Amino acid sequence: MRQNARMNATSPDFSKGAAWQRGEYVPIAQASVTMTDWGFLRSDATYDVVTVWDGAFFRLDAHLERFLRSCARFRLDPGKSPREIIDILTHCVRLAGLRQSYVEMICTRGQPPWGSRDPRQAANQFFAFAVPYVWIADEEQRRRGLHVAVSDVQRIPAASVDPTAKNYHWNDLTMGLLGALDAGADTVLLTDAGGNVVEGPGFNVFALCGGTLVTPKDGVLEGITRRTVLELARVRGIVVAERTLSAAELRGASEAFLSSSGGGVLPVTRVDGQPVGSGVVGPVTTTLLQAYWDAHRDPRYSTPVEG
Amino acid sequence: MRQNARMNATSPDFSKGAAWQRGEYVPIAQASVTMTDWGFLRSDATYDVVTVWDGAFFRLDAHLERFLRSCARFRLDPGKSPREIIDILTHCVRLAGLRQSYVEMICTRGQPPWGSRDPRQAANQFFAFAVPYVWIADEEQRRRGLHVAVSDVQRIPAASVDPTAKNYHWNDLTMGLLGALDAGADTVLLTDAGGNVVEGPGFNVFALCGGTLVTPKDGVLEGITRRTVLELARVRGIVVAERTLSAAELRGASEAFLSSSGGGVLPVTRVDGQPVGSGVVGPVTTTLLQAYWDAHRDPRYSTPVEG
Repeated sequence: MRQNARMNATSPDFSKGAAWQRGEYVPIAQASVTMTDWGFLRSDATYDVVTVWDGAFFRLDAHLERFLRSCARFRLDPGKSPREIIDILTHCVRLAGLRQSYVEMICTRGQPPWGSRDPRQAANQFFAFAVPYVWIADEEQRRRGLHVAVSDVQRIPAASVDPTAKNYHWNDLTMGLLGALDAGADTVLLTDAGGNVVEGPGFNVFALCGGTLVTPKDGVLEGITRRTVLELARVRGIVVAERTLSAAELRGASEAFLSSSGGGVLPVTRVDGQPVGSGVVGPVTTTLLQAYWDAHRDPRYSTPVEG
Repeated sequence: MRQNARMNATSPDFSKGAAWQRGEYVPIAQASVTMTDWGFLRSDATYDVVTVWDGAFFRLDAHLERFLRSCARFRLDPGKSPREIIDILTHCVRLAGLRQSYVEMICTRGQPPWGSRDPRQAANQFFAFAVPYVWIADEEQRRRGLHVAVSDVQRIPAASVDPTAKNYHWNDLTMGLLGALDAGADTVLLTDAGGNVVEGPGFNVFALCGGTLVTPKDGVLEGITRRTVLELARVRGIVVAERTLSAAELRGASEAFLSSSGGGVLPVTRVDGQPVGSGVVGPVTTTLLQAYWDAHRDPRYSTPVEG
């Protein structure tokens, strides 16, 4: 009786999200990274995000596989088997009691013994958290379509940081986003040194150019949502092309949309203040948006959290 | 009496370093950043490092000025006056009881209200910590001179991230360092898209080429130690040039050294396995190394911690 009372008194509140850190589950507000972890002090980390929709992980295997590939690329070892990672992610979602969730797994360098600057001597750290589903566009933006600005801030090139391994090097995206917000746009697309559109903060981009659905190929994250859209388009007979996409082509496209785990297919109806095509959400975008959400009921893509 | 006993029982151990976070001083091992702070999840942060030597800050004003300039560049507000920042840094050093210290000040984005992705709505956070002095080269390396490898990993270009505002975008430096360590070198220098040497993890580079002391000008952090070396060289009549430095020029230099708050002037005696000049620490390097440490007794540069 007394023990129950104590347990209740100290019972943590996971309602805003749950995290796994240093061997224990904590409410998201208490989750932290050690200040001297190189994951913070050198952004020496990788991560991945999988979503839960209607109580099921969407494409969990693909996200887990990419996470482990990103770890290997940066020579980080989460020190967990895929099964252990899945168990931790699942437990975070259950603790938070979420049917719709944004679930992040993280591996940081940790820190080498004091005085050493050799990353190989560091004890790498694994973290995870589950929070309510994150939309990268609000309800009104999703209805009317996003207004996007093309920034002249250049996305960090692949010769510097491998964009296919997910990383927190977002200063370029953040500075571009600030400029776009100041200009009255909803979000931003960054360009490469050649003036081609590449990606934005947390999403890939698609444009319907002369009947072909184009998405940038080089210098971008190989988004799982991007891959899903390409698969869904192909089975519907939509011609797709992974190639460079100039800013001029995007502006002249008949339709455009973003793809992200934070909302799936997100229509774009204005670029740099000018309407894309007729300025309303187009039919190809609508078809793929619907197909994206329908795919969440496909057992090949869906893993129940309570599985 | 009882209160004293309690205070002793809970008295924190600052001997390994002290940090300031969320309004309180804590031992460095307890210092942390909230996991959902964009300073971690987007590396949306800036920082600066000032050293304490023999109980005095070295060029505190210059580091503080650069820190506030970096904050402004990234539109971050530490929410502290210069006087308040100095007081916090001073208190960290005192708590840790350090005569030689590496003192870091940090400003992170924090996070915007839940659901918002607008950086302008975030409550920025200020952190600081003081730990024992960090040498980026150990005693033997400093005596014999560092063995450096030139990496083909390109330093993140200025068109993507402003290198003059200090930031944690170090994946390029870390991956380059791992390659250099694997190859048996002590540390690494990264290049730009044109194959010119720019900087390494936490340091600038100097090379004596045909009697002129050359240091890269573009795409590098404007190090305070770099600036100090340039000043000390000029007053000694050494001809200096801030310009591009090709990898070939570095390899053909008669002397070379690194400059960093983590050790001052650090001689380089091998590049990619080949000796620089005669392969021993040269006279210009020795002169400037000595001048750097002498400058610590110059009251124009020195601010006693107990001031």
